[in-house]
Amino acid sequence: MLELRLVQGSLLKKVLEAIKDLVNDANFDCSATGFSLQAMDSSHVALVALLLRSEGFEHYRCDRNLSMGMNLNNMAKMLRCAGNDDIITLKADDGSDTVTFMFESPTQDKISDFEMKLMDIDSEHLGIPEAEYHAIVRMPSAEFARICKDLSSIGDTVVISVTKEGVKFSTRGDIGAANIVCRQNTTVDKPEEATVIEMNEPVSLTFALRYMNSFTKATPLSNTVTISLSSELPVVVEYKIAEMGYVRFYLAPKIEEDEDDAKPE
Amino acid sequence: MLELRLVQGSLLKKVLEAIKDLVNDANFDCSATGFSLQAMDSSHVALVALLLRSEGFEHYRCDRNLSMGMNLNNMAKMLRCAGNDDIITLKADDGSDTVTFMFESPTQDKISDFEMKLMDIDSEHLGIPEAEYHAIVRMPSAEFARICKDLSSIGDTVVISVTKEGVKFSTRGDIGAANIVCRQNTTVDKPEEATVIEMNEPVSLTFALRYMNSFTKATPLSNTVTISLSSELPVVVEYKIAEMGYVRFYLAPKIEEDEDDAKPE
Amino acid sequence: MLELRLVQGSLLKKVLEAIKDLVNDANFDCSATGFSLQAMDSSHVALVALLLRSEGFEHYRCDRNLSMGMNLNNMAKMLRCAGNDDIITLKADDGSDTVTFMFESPTQDKISDFEMKLMDIDSEHLGIPEAEYHAIVRMPSAEFARICKDLSSIGDTVVISVTKEGVKFSTRGDIGAANIVCRQNTTVDKPEEATVIEMNEPVSLTFALRYMNSFTKATPLSNTVTISLSSELPVVVEYKIAEMGYVRFYLAPKIEEDEDDAKPE
Repeated sequence: MLELRLVQGSLLKKVLEAIKDLVNDANFDCSATGFSLQAMDSSHVALVALLLRSEGFEHYRCDRNLSMGMNLNNMAKMLRCAGNDDIITLKADDGSDTVTFMFESPTQDKISDFEMKLMDIDSEHLGIPEAEYHAIVRMPSAEFARICKDLSSIGDTVVISVTKEGVKFSTRGDIGAANIVCRQNTTVDKPEEATVIEMNEPVSLTFALRYMNSFTKATPLSNTVTISLSSELPVVVEYKIAEMGYVRFYLAPKIEEDEDDAKPE
Repeated sequence: MLELRLVQGSLLKKVLEAIKDLVNDANFDCSATGFSLQAMDSSHVALVALLLRSEGFEHYRCDRNLSMGMNLNNMAKMLRCAGNDDIITLKADDGSDTVTFMFESPTQDKISDFEMKLMDIDSEHLGIPEAEYHAIVRMPSAEFARICKDLSSIGDTVVISVTKEGVKFSTRGDIGAANIVCRQNTTVDKPEEATVIEMNEPVSLTFALRYMNSFTKATPLSNTVTISLSSELPVVVEYKIAEMGYVRFYLAPKIEEDEDDAKPE
Repeated sequence: MLELRLVQGSLLKKVLEAIKDLVNDANFDCSATGFSLQAMDSSHVALVALLLRSEGFEHYRCDRNLSMGMNLNNMAKMLRCAGNDDIITLKADDGSDTVTFMFESPTQDKISDFEMKLMDIDSEHLGIPEAEYHAIVRMPSAEFARICKDLSSIGDTVVISVTKEGVKFSTRGDIGAANIVCRQNTTVDKPEEATVIEMNEPVSLTFALRYMNSFTKATPLSNTVTISLSSELPVVVEYKIAEMGYVRFYLAPKIEEDEDDAKPE
């Protein structure tokens, strides 16, 4: 039997809004350590990894490891019926082909249960090794989202270049070219407004803006985003979920003959 | 001659927004007692009844009973041109084929008059007898609107079941099933947040969510909604208009072989 | 070389939003006195004139007169990437076929530069003589925008009639007729809420609402709008830009056999 009670139910609502456009169907894996998901996006280009650790739940009962195949759009539809202050409990009986989401209003005057059919989904779990990155940028998540959106009005790809001084986002399109530089800045009043760069060596990589914009749907989950870059590895765009875990997006860089030229062929 | 001056003109704006999607053309009836309307929706399934009592108007002159046929969409277009704080005066000369809406801004610096052509509409006034209901639920109107909207993302019909403990709204669709229970709750700080159930006998009835969602367009008119249910009668969904009257919606329950199954055939 | 630094960059953003739907491509003219534009709308009915005086810029360097052809939609796309509090600097090298917009965030932590290709645009500069008008109406810009929008739901043209007492906006359409009268009102607390009428002789002129609604896209630029009317001249709808200049729209009145009848044929 599975019973996971999450007092801050809005977190689960935000997780689904963050990943449902990227992934159609996926297996949620429950074990003693937590509630997790790993899935490729529908065009098999990007990878999403979610972890909600068991300690973050008010009540976490998972008698045996369970993999539940869900349609994320349907799951998002149901979670949208939860109030932002509701407690959400996820329940499944052993061997059942359904999962139940229970929503309790803060006053306990309104109790909803939504039952959803589970699906059989073939999936293989990729081992993602811990890696060394050439550069790690931590910056306000809203700023990163704004930059990806702004550059999309000019071009299709973004070159992310990191130096000790800052991170530069560049694009080029039919109507012109754009460069946005965010300087390292650690002396702000609020730590979540800082832009912090850890760099072993300079790096400059090109990515499809379409995916970056998809990843920024996770912005409501966290005030900051961490972008880990290495020339031989997919970029990792990570949104931490307070005291519980993370949503991570992985995307391989585009290989281009002239990396300074972000213009799509 | 007819001259009705309504200081809180926004009420009339909200009334039109509440009913214009349900009813295309209708007769407004003016008499010494008030300004009223009774009309079937365009698919002849639901009935709308509006009453604005003469006492609620600052000035109410109606020399003889008058029935004025109006296109509600056109009337709504004109009323949308009134400011929310405007005083609205409705004027018609005897025998005229037009009605005039006059809007006065609170400072009297802006005076508008909108003249609309009247229509000849055949209609028969149904006598709606006062009836005994098995159960009457009074609840926050925004909560009821939210529930109808939420359930619409799962199914097409709603089963409303009342017991002494509370009222349950259920639906079922391709992606799963949902139950939302609102408990009786009379010990809230603000009376408009209470959920109050008067019950003579338990009742469980099925309705089309499409109509329920239409009715909730009246939500801005009142903080609370009253739902009166009886197994032999149409449900009445009533929004009181402060000190003036009401908008009431009537809808016959769906007869289904298995009433617990809200899934549409 | 051209370098124009505008601390209140949001002004330039608002200017582009005000005119980009009316004009596709236009030459911006830079001289020692300021940054200006004059262009017909794409259907050659209305004229737009913009002036931003050099004194309004923090830094204004214009070595020689320059005319830069720009696609206003593309320019608006780039300016939308500037934050509302950003400083905007416009730069062009002599003989270059590009212009660069630089955006600096208030904290200087984010610096963007957007480079746009210039175009060759044939245009002739019309001399607009200073003229005497029969009537000049100054009123709150939001009020004027609301009136144009409201009347558009009834008819296609507006008759603007000025008398000493006030200004009347009238229209007529299939569903009825509307008159909105704004009274002269100079005794308000805030001068920008006044409606002030300077009149030499009464005037009543008919205009296409489609264009008036386009002009009101400039509403965010100024709290007040000035409408100058004369029976032999195009109307001038002017939005002042604080301490810098203006955006002016010119539109010829419609000649109709019966000017009181605003109904389109």
